[in-house]
Amino acid sequence: MHKPDELRSLVESYLGDLALTPELHGQAEAVRYALTMGGKRVRPVICLATAEAAGVEPERALPAAAAVELVHNFSLVHDDLPALDNDSMRRGNPSVWASHGEAIAILAGDALLAEAFRLALSYPTPAVGRELAQATLGMIGGQYLDITATAPDEGTLHRLKTGCLFSASVGVALWVADVPEREQAPWRAFGDELGLLFQIVDDVLDDDGYVLTHGADGARALADEAADRAQSRLADIPADTSVLSEIVAVLAARTF
Amino acid sequence: MHKPDELRSLVESYLGDLALTPELHGQAEAVRYALTMGGKRVRPVICLATAEAAGVEPERALPAAAAVELVHNFSLVHDDLPALDNDSMRRGNPSVWASHGEAIAILAGDALLAEAFRLALSYPTPAVGRELAQATLGMIGGQYLDITATAPDEGTLHRLKTGCLFSASVGVALWVADVPEREQAPWRAFGDELGLLFQIVDDVLDDDGYVLTHGADGARALADEAADRAQSRLADIPADTSVLSEIVAVLAARTF
Repeated sequence: MHKPDELRSLVESYLGDLALTPELHGQAEAVRYALTMGGKRVRPVICLATAEAAGVEPERALPAAAAVELVHNFSLVHDDLPALDNDSMRRGNPSVWASHGEAIAILAGDALLAEAFRLALSYPTPAVGRELAQATLGMIGGQYLDITATAPDEGTLHRLKTGCLFSASVGVALWVADVPEREQAPWRAFGDELGLLFQIVDDVLDDDGYVLTHGADGARALADEAADRAQSRLADIPADTSVLSEIVAVLAARTF
Repeated sequence: MHKPDELRSLVESYLGDLALTPELHGQAEAVRYALTMGGKRVRPVICLATAEAAGVEPERALPAAAAVELVHNFSLVHDDLPALDNDSMRRGNPSVWASHGEAIAILAGDALLAEAFRLALSYPTPAVGRELAQATLGMIGGQYLDITATAPDEGTLHRLKTGCLFSASVGVALWVADVPEREQAPWRAFGDELGLLFQIVDDVLDDDGYVLTHGADGARALADEAADRAQSRLADIPADTSVLSEIVAVLAARTF
């Protein structure tokens, strides 16, 4: 089994070498800028670890893992736009619109989404792409609820904005590993816990969201409960999920 | 065989009844606004006519045809944005950003693209989605070349901006109809002529583009040549392509 850091290296190397569609012409530059701004690559690492736990070489899951990361990056590029969150900085660098202009940033987000589907559709089954389409639509719905402040509750908002794509990180790996649909439930129950864990820890580190509604200690306790639930979901899966367990521990304890 | 007007009614009815992903929540309203602004539905009609000529009921091609139309609508919604073409009107109505604001319009375009892939992936084969991803990436590259004025030539620009999606209208139908790849060449040669024909006639009607570079009579002559080439490509296809031939004649003679 590969360690999380090894999986992350696989992801970085795959993304660094990724051949973009030649018809993008000069637009590819902003797409690559968005992709190489880094980040923790949490979602694709979860995807690769799930695939390996389910019995296939992580390399076989790389296009699916990269597709999930591209959807994540698509959402960041569009969310940063002046009309949405108006963020001119992203991970210490100018965001795509701040560095390339709004028009190129809109097209870069579009291209990231279309490239994500191209990668997801490199498999013989359409199921990888279906999983990605559903997650993308959920994220868009979540972003709508957020900017219009019309979410019925905090849980629905985060399940859509963050949870969908974490769940899909597990889901696409199950299709790549040919896990039959009737055996997917325990894996999916695990995947459904990850988004909330990630979101609460994010809020604890940023001192917002769940910290505002539950206090710092309350939010920390919620994060620990989410991590416990994720670990106990893993225990229900009849496979060696030790690397996924390590990832959960790292997500719960992360300090950046 | 269904007549073009009958095929168009099938498309309108399918789009009108289309169930959008529930997770879009209120965002669905702007998506539906963009979809019901109308237009000629040229691309989905070509898709259905190709599918029927290739031997399947046009109804089977409706999700693929709608997917192509949604990609077309996605591109219109994003191209109309202030940062791109800054068009506040579209087909006699306020464009999506002018009626719903820029943030909702950006998300509406994103949702149209993701819904398009959801529809394309309702088939057992991933080939429909692959065809759509390639066409979308080509269109994005074309839009980049246009706004940055970096196109190597007029032909490349229009092949990407317009031609890709017309070609895909034929291509997705071939996959739906299970036309083996080795037999697709004559169909694809036909599809590749349609975008140019459509574009030149558009320019003649709008008095720009090809009219500026070739004069009104020159552009009209180019359109007639493109229509002749499309008709002679149809003659190479071993199937009843009479409805496609009628569509070419309508495209060449259209006055709006």
